[in-house]
Amino acid sequence: MRSLGAKPLAQPAPVWVIGTYFQDERPNIMTAAWGGICCSDPPCLQISLRKATATYHNIMHSKAFTVNVPNPEFMEKSDYAGMVSGKDTDKFAATGLTPVKSDIVDAPYVQEFPMVLECSLIKHVEIGLHTVFIGEIKDVKVKEEFVDGHHADMAKVNPVLFAPGSRRYYAIGKEIGQAFSSGRICMRNGE
Amino acid sequence: MRSLGAKPLAQPAPVWVIGTYFQDERPNIMTAAWGGICCSDPPCLQISLRKATATYHNIMHSKAFTVNVPNPEFMEKSDYAGMVSGKDTDKFAATGLTPVKSDIVDAPYVQEFPMVLECSLIKHVEIGLHTVFIGEIKDVKVKEEFVDGHHADMAKVNPVLFAPGSRRYYAIGKEIGQAFSSGRICMRNGE
Repeated sequence: MRSLGAKPLAQPAPVWVIGTYFQDERPNIMTAAWGGICCSDPPCLQISLRKATATYHNIMHSKAFTVNVPNPEFMEKSDYAGMVSGKDTDKFAATGLTPVKSDIVDAPYVQEFPMVLECSLIKHVEIGLHTVFIGEIKDVKVKEEFVDGHHADMAKVNPVLFAPGSRRYYAIGKEIGQAFSSGRICMRNGE
Repeated sequence: MRSLGAKPLAQPAPVWVIGTYFQDERPNIMTAAWGGICCSDPPCLQISLRKATATYHNIMHSKAFTVNVPNPEFMEKSDYAGMVSGKDTDKFAATGLTPVKSDIVDAPYVQEFPMVLECSLIKHVEIGLHTVFIGEIKDVKVKEEFVDGHHADMAKVNPVLFAPGSRRYYAIGKEIGQAFSSGRICMRNGE
């Protein structure tokens, strides 16, 4: 195997657009790829941010944020939200996206995106360049056309994926199996 | 938008097979979907585990783990590793996978998988049902055929994706753009 060194190159990574309010109540978005679910009960996820970002300070103040999940239709707008700072630019205006005030947490979400998670900060953890923000998921909202039964259909939501290293974006591919089921084929050996 | 409630339904989620040693040095694997990168410097990722798992106790003891990234070829074996406990079963034997002792951390990795991250525990954070383990990435190893220049080619690695909620597995789809570049199209409006 080829050694690539001590680098944050795990795959896959998400493309999560983080919604927050500035102290003067202007809505902001920024794009983060360092994040993931981190607890089932209470349901929590983590996003990791540099102190240099406006979003870091917004979350420290409001104790809330939203995670907005883009599909490929919103790839350019999401990428843009990770390239410029909300300190200098109204990124909602620049992208034409619409901020909606959450009824549940003190943060705006993106009206046009397929899926939104509204989060309340419960803990932050200093690591180094990034601070880990752990948010309790207070609600998950999905556009009606992407819902399948009680769940968001991942093929329909089609969340954009990020490849650390090459910095390329990918779409979701085909469904290949069912968890807690496909593995039964190995049970004849081990069980 | 349809409200799905306060649930850990963020998309996408990874399928990461965690390699650890028991105190008696038996190698173990278990599959986790709660995880993500959480710092660039030092390079770190988080995986979140229940105290009920053998892996939780193995990491607490050894302060190390590996993250092994499966492609669809290894979907069944990875799913199996999340279905049974290593306390009762030799999951390497049951799956036919080969444990390799890491030279860098006190944990085994899976020889056959496309990509491996060797991690040293630097912090654990109690949340609720799950504990967040933050590991510093000491090296990333990728099979030669999946390397493109200095990076792992995500389309070639083809990491299996997990959809929380529906619990379906997906493959990677097509490349759709380049990060820190696609977004320039919005700059004429905002900059």
